[in-house]
Amino acid sequence: MKNPPSLDQLISALRVLPGVGPKSAQRMAYHLLQRDKPGAEKLARALEHALSHIGHCQRCNTFSETPLCALCADPARRQDQLCVVEMPADMLTLEHTQSYDGLYFVLMGRLSPLDGIGPRDLPLEKLAHRALDGAVREVILATNFTAEGETTAHALSELLKGHGLTLTRMARGLPVGGELEHTDPGTLAQALFERRGVTGG
Amino acid sequence: MKNPPSLDQLISALRVLPGVGPKSAQRMAYHLLQRDKPGAEKLARALEHALSHIGHCQRCNTFSETPLCALCADPARRQDQLCVVEMPADMLTLEHTQSYDGLYFVLMGRLSPLDGIGPRDLPLEKLAHRALDGAVREVILATNFTAEGETTAHALSELLKGHGLTLTRMARGLPVGGELEHTDPGTLAQALFERRGVTGG
Repeated sequence: MKNPPSLDQLISALRVLPGVGPKSAQRMAYHLLQRDKPGAEKLARALEHALSHIGHCQRCNTFSETPLCALCADPARRQDQLCVVEMPADMLTLEHTQSYDGLYFVLMGRLSPLDGIGPRDLPLEKLAHRALDGAVREVILATNFTAEGETTAHALSELLKGHGLTLTRMARGLPVGGELEHTDPGTLAQALFERRGVTGG
Repeated sequence: MKNPPSLDQLISALRVLPGVGPKSAQRMAYHLLQRDKPGAEKLARALEHALSHIGHCQRCNTFSETPLCALCADPARRQDQLCVVEMPADMLTLEHTQSYDGLYFVLMGRLSPLDGIGPRDLPLEKLAHRALDGAVREVILATNFTAEGETTAHALSELLKGHGLTLTRMARGLPVGGELEHTDPGTLAQALFERRGVTGG
């Protein structure tokens, strides 16, 4: 006794999604076929459409339907700051703060030996080319503060140093509204180590 | 600053999958477009194929590519026992035990008012028609022992009683290899209540 072949194929195909194991894939397939056929149809079409329409911005490497993404094409952005992030979501999050008006470069990943992602899997040449275009003066290494993100930031600083660029990293410290008692020791130690002078003190 | 429209459409389409919220949908879309385009292609095709090929067995209601599923078409199965389960996965699990050679009926769901699934959303008429075909003598109500499953079993027993069928429910009790100390009080109480005579005792 087995599932019909096309059901098994669907269950197996759903496992390409990150974080979806055999049990969830089965549950998803049942749900789509039993309760949401229009949703399944929509998903199939969205996949096809995205595959045929989405490429990478030739300048910042983020997902884009046009050769140049909207942000890179915006003449109002500062051309001398380049903020390097891991994923497009990081760029969206930073844009949400409305506190940065330079440009971005999206790595589409991070160095992660455990996942088999090494320097060759990141667009380092494209980044070097972009950062050394003559207009960029500061590169903000805004990879995550995880082990992988820190390793990536280090590798990027090695890649870009010695070309007269200012390389910066976002500050670590307590979150706005954060209380010392509820901050992890690592962050607290870092915040103490990177303490800043107080004006008027 | 936004995602390209076809990326946003894909993220929104992925949310038809049960248990997938906005963050996972975004992560899935990034993964597919960045790291597994062949997988995305495969998923789109599997969805289309399953949608066009999979229907329901006219006898037991499970997913099937043929009018009659392989199990219902098997003449070696006992025709007088009908085991009613919630989902095809339950049928597969029971088949795996190799301890049942009757037939099945798959509800494709359970009564679940919280999810908006009432009696009209289950194939109760189809079940009644199937159970009262004259060959069936025992109906085993094998819905889950959850609140929804118990409610469903009760509704099914109301539906099928008074027609001379033997209605049974699977036994509750300790699992094989189970220890009293590590069994929850509800199961323990039920196991005590449903204790059986010991032969030779």
